Order: sequence, then structure tokens, then C-alpha cells
Amino acid sequence: MEIKVLKDILESNISKAEEIRSLLKEKKVYMCDIMSSPGSGKTTLTDRVLSVLKNEFRCAVIEGDIKTTRDAEKLAKHDIPIMQIETSLFGGDCHLESSWIRKCLESFNLDELDAVFIENVGNLVCPAEFELGDDERIVVLSVTEGEDKPVKYPLMFTSSQTLAITKIDLLPHLDFSMEELLENVKRVNPKMNIFMLSARTGEGMDAFLDHLRLNIAKKRG
Amino acid sequence: MEIKVLKDILESNISKAEEIRSLLKEKKVYMCDIMSSPGSGKTTLTDRVLSVLKNEFRCAVIEGDIKTTRDAEKLAKHDIPIMQIETSLFGGDCHLESSWIRKCLESFNLDELDAVFIENVGNLVCPAEFELGDDERIVVLSVTEGEDKPVKYPLMFTSSQTLAITKIDLLPHLDFSMEELLENVKRVNPKMNIFMLSARTGEGMDAFLDHLRLNIAKKRG
Repeated sequence: MEIKVLKDILESNISKAEEIRSLLKEKKVYMCDIMSSPGSGKTTLTDRVLSVLKNEFRCAVIEGDIKTTRDAEKLAKHDIPIMQIETSLFGGDCHLESSWIRKCLESFNLDELDAVFIENVGNLVCPAEFELGDDERIVVLSVTEGEDKPVKYPLMFTSSQTLAITKIDLLPHLDFSMEELLENVKRVNPKMNIFMLSARTGEGMDAFLDHLRLNIAKKRG
Repeated sequence: MEIKVLKDILESNISKAEEIRSLLKEKKVYMCDIMSSPGSGKTTLTDRVLSVLKNEFRCAVIEGDIKTTRDAEKLAKHDIPIMQIETSLFGGDCHLESSWIRKCLESFNLDELDAVFIENVGNLVCPAEFELGDDERIVVLSVTEGEDKPVKYPLMFTSSQTLAITKIDLLPHLDFSMEELLENVKRVNPKMNIFMLSARTGEGMDAFLDHLRLNIAKKRG
């Protein structure tokens, strides 16, 4: 019974995600789902991305958190449309679901947007199971988390197209092998786009921004 | 219906956890549930703890991972009983459940143990919802994860008795305010036992080990 109900939830989530996909195709709006463990630097990365891309594209943000509106507040300075989903209001959920994303998109004026950035709940497990109808899933993994995460949390890495390896400014202070991480990524998802960067120092941001520019422009057609 | 089923799962989990609690009381075995985000340093901390405490107490470990037996392999050198639960065999679950812990405990000889260390799946959300029948929940939070985690993931911090703040050797290289973290902890759980340490350098480990020694001895009676 448990399995049956979970299946129903996932199927209903997929069907709403498909509706979102059609809607965004029609409106030519790019959307990405940024996922990671808590504290990998999703908000700092999104902040850095927005400070550049908001001058080139019409951007909006959907912030997912179990509790608090802190991340949305941090991004408020960009003066772009932001919706905060506090999942604790829905029972403390550990992921975002497509029906909530749909509601957020309805509150935006999609005719006046080029790109929507979703910052998912900090969790390297559950969000991967829920399609949101986006164009691109971006996993953020900080170098402080160790090299083994792709093989230990495979669904997140196999279901995402892009990996942003963050906090590389800390590399000199860590026992961390980038080579081993890249081998582990290759093992589970050899086609992954990989970017190494520090949102704090700005190192490596240009290539990541170019990647987003390209994907947003592609969607605009 | 979804809520009803979840309620059934949680209730069945609690009843099994109560059985475990009785069993461990009878056998005078201390058990802790170590939880954190992926990459906060649970395994490194457990490794460091075992290298000292295995010489003073009869220890065993239960390792929870979605996939791979890497963490169990890392701890194999200690030559103590270790059980690995790979949750992907149960459908990729993002947490440990008491029924699985019960099975692991059955495979140990509890008459010959003083302490069982559970390393939960790397996830700051879901494991907090599942009682395992332990004496102590220990949250591990690394300083690289930021100051806001206690207020953003409150259940993990309100339901745990002890917080190990790890990777403090990295503090000189981070924009991190320990004061702000401690304020946030105090806000959600003012009674929390707090330890600041680096499992890598050994700094702060003594106080944490003393805390564990005391709790294990208390359980032995």
C-alpha cells in the first residue's frame, strides 16, 4: 500500500511537471532546478548568478525551504520576482513538488520572463525523485563534502545534467582529490557538464554564466 | 490517504523503536544516532571516536547509506562488529527505520557490547522524523555549511540532544560566525550539548569523547 501511494504521488507529480514543461516551451522561458545538500552554497551561487544575468535577461526565483524565508530575503536586493515556498506549511516536506512550482509560475507574468531559477530544499536525496518540468537540473556540490557523493547519492547525479563544484577557494586547506571526484562523476554520469568555481571569489564563474546564457538563449529560440 | 499512510509508517516505526529501547535498557547497551547532511564528516568523526573508545568499551557500528559500502569499509580497520544498511535495496530511502536497526541489533551479540554507533543516511531532513530507539541523537554540522541550518532545518535540531560542530580547523578560511550559529542553536534548542571540534586535527575531541564516555557508563549503570 505504501508503495502504491508513493507511486500515485510520483505519477501525479510527473503529470504536473509535463504541464509545466509545455507551458514554459510555449512561453519560451528557461527554468533550472538547483539542488544540493544544505550548505553547499546554492543561495550564494544564485546570488552571484543573478547579479550578472539580471542585467541581460528577465529573471525570477523560486526559493524552497522547509522553514524561514532567509534565502528569499538574501536575494530580495536584486529586485526581481521571488516566490518563497516554505515546505513546513505542507508538513515539513524535504523536497519541492511540481504542483507548488506550477502555482508559483502562475503568480509570475511568464510573458515578461526569460529565466526562472529554482533553489530546491537542501537535500541530496529526495528532490531528485521529483520532476519539476525544468530544462536543466543543476547539482551543487562543495569540495568540503568529499569526493564520494556521486556514488553514494547516485540518483541526484544521474538525473542532473550539470554539476557546479563550489568553494574551490578552500581547496588548499582540504584533503580533497578533484581527480577522484571527477572519476566518481564519470562513473555515474559521464555526460555531465562540470563547472568548478568559487561563488565567493568569482573564480570559474564566467564559464558557468556562459553555460546559463547559452541555455537561456536556446530556449528563447 | 497519503497522510494516513505516512502516519501508519511513522507509528509502526515508533513502536519498533520502543522495542529497541526496552531491549537496549535490558542489555545496558548505549546507542546513538549520528545524523547530518552529506559530507559533514560523520564517518571521519566516528572513525576518530572508535580509534579511542574501542579500547575502553565494546563497540559496534551500524552504517546507513543509500548506495555503496564505502563508509563501512573505511571503519573495517577497527575490527569491531559493523552492519551496513544499503537503503537503495529498500527503494532508495533517505533515512534509516527502526525495523532495520532492530534486525542489525539481532545480528550483534548485545551481551558482549557496551555501545552501538549508528551513522544515518546523509540528510538533514528525513532521518529526524524516524525514531530509532537510541539514547542520544547527535547532529553533526560542519562550519562550511553556514550559520543558518538550525533555523532552516529545525526538527533535526529540536529532536537531538547533542551537536558536534565539525571542521573547525577551516574557520580561518571561512566567512563564518560561530556566535551567530550558537544563537541560532539556542533559539531552537537551548538545552543542546554543543561540542566544537576538528576530527582531522583532533582539536576539541577530548570533550566530545568524555561526553560519550559518561553516557556509555551511565547506561552500563
